[in-house]
Amino acid sequence: MPRWEPNPRERLERAAITLFAEQGYDATTVDEIAASAGLARSAFFRHFRDKRGVLFGGEDPMPARLADGIRNAPPEHTALQAVETAFAGIADVWFSAESRDLAPLRFSVIAASDELRERELLKRHGITEEVQKALSERGIGDPAATVAASLATLAFARTVAVWGRPGETEEFTAILSRVLGELHTAARELP
Amino acid sequence: MPRWEPNPRERLERAAITLFAEQGYDATTVDEIAASAGLARSAFFRHFRDKRGVLFGGEDPMPARLADGIRNAPPEHTALQAVETAFAGIADVWFSAESRDLAPLRFSVIAASDELRERELLKRHGITEEVQKALSERGIGDPAATVAASLATLAFARTVAVWGRPGETEEFTAILSRVLGELHTAARELP
Repeated sequence: MPRWEPNPRERLERAAITLFAEQGYDATTVDEIAASAGLARSAFFRHFRDKRGVLFGGEDPMPARLADGIRNAPPEHTALQAVETAFAGIADVWFSAESRDLAPLRFSVIAASDELRERELLKRHGITEEVQKALSERGIGDPAATVAASLATLAFARTVAVWGRPGETEEFTAILSRVLGELHTAARELP
Repeated sequence: MPRWEPNPRERLERAAITLFAEQGYDATTVDEIAASAGLARSAFFRHFRDKRGVLFGGEDPMPARLADGIRNAPPEHTALQAVETAFAGIADVWFSAESRDLAPLRFSVIAASDELRERELLKRHGITEEVQKALSERGIGDPAATVAASLATLAFARTVAVWGRPGETEEFTAILSRVLGELHTAARELP
């Protein structure tokens, strides 16, 4: 019995992702997740709508927070500087040190399921749309806002993949800054 | 009775898209589509796996043909020139004058359904992946191939949207060339 017990939501999340990784996403039931977390089935449904909700919370406010960060970035920031500032603003909550140890398992679960990979891609598209709108509101024209938003989402996906690598210790914001810079250079100097 | 009867597949496609647009995608049945095309239900299933297959053929070889076009483009072509050449090579088959009159209806059907919009996004992601692989095989490094593939897919989506606008007459390849150029400029000069 560990001295410190995480809250029920976190226990359910850890139990679910561990079971998904061990026996497959499709083969895992809500009852098994609840039992493995030492909680009742009803506790699961207090925190998540369904099994998929553990990996993709229906109302993840991250894209909206990110867009707020872009809107509120200093006016003198370029498009990609505003994107970088906004990511720095959400990193503490969405990419905390505590959630990092589960990340490799989470990624392997998503990679193993067509359904979950599709969810991930659609979620990413939602981020692109939010970023594009926020950049437009900063006065970035078309198609520059669309191109910048695509680079932002590419940078995000690459950063998350690096950040969640087993044993990786570089900070989320440091990875993001480097990756975004590389993508910007690539865009400027397309061969 | 028109003098010229399109082939059964095309009749089914026209009937389906027209019904989807009139009464909604969810509300339309395979039986209604077949009846409206003057064919038996079994004829539908000879051509399509299901209702969604009319809009998203399961085995659309377009992304693979596009990737072949990139691989076979003249070696001296830049990444985006190879992309442009490859799109020019598929336009006659996938964006023919005959299919153009159905395009506005098709787009309005897809736009009205979450499920179909998701399918469209996932299909587009498949194109990005194929283009990225083909560019890598031309020796384009990372992340340049990824950035170029994103621009290619953005250009494709915008081109299809313009090409399928009611009353629009500009050729697919001409639109693509212009849009790709605009995106390239935006990428080079990101504000």
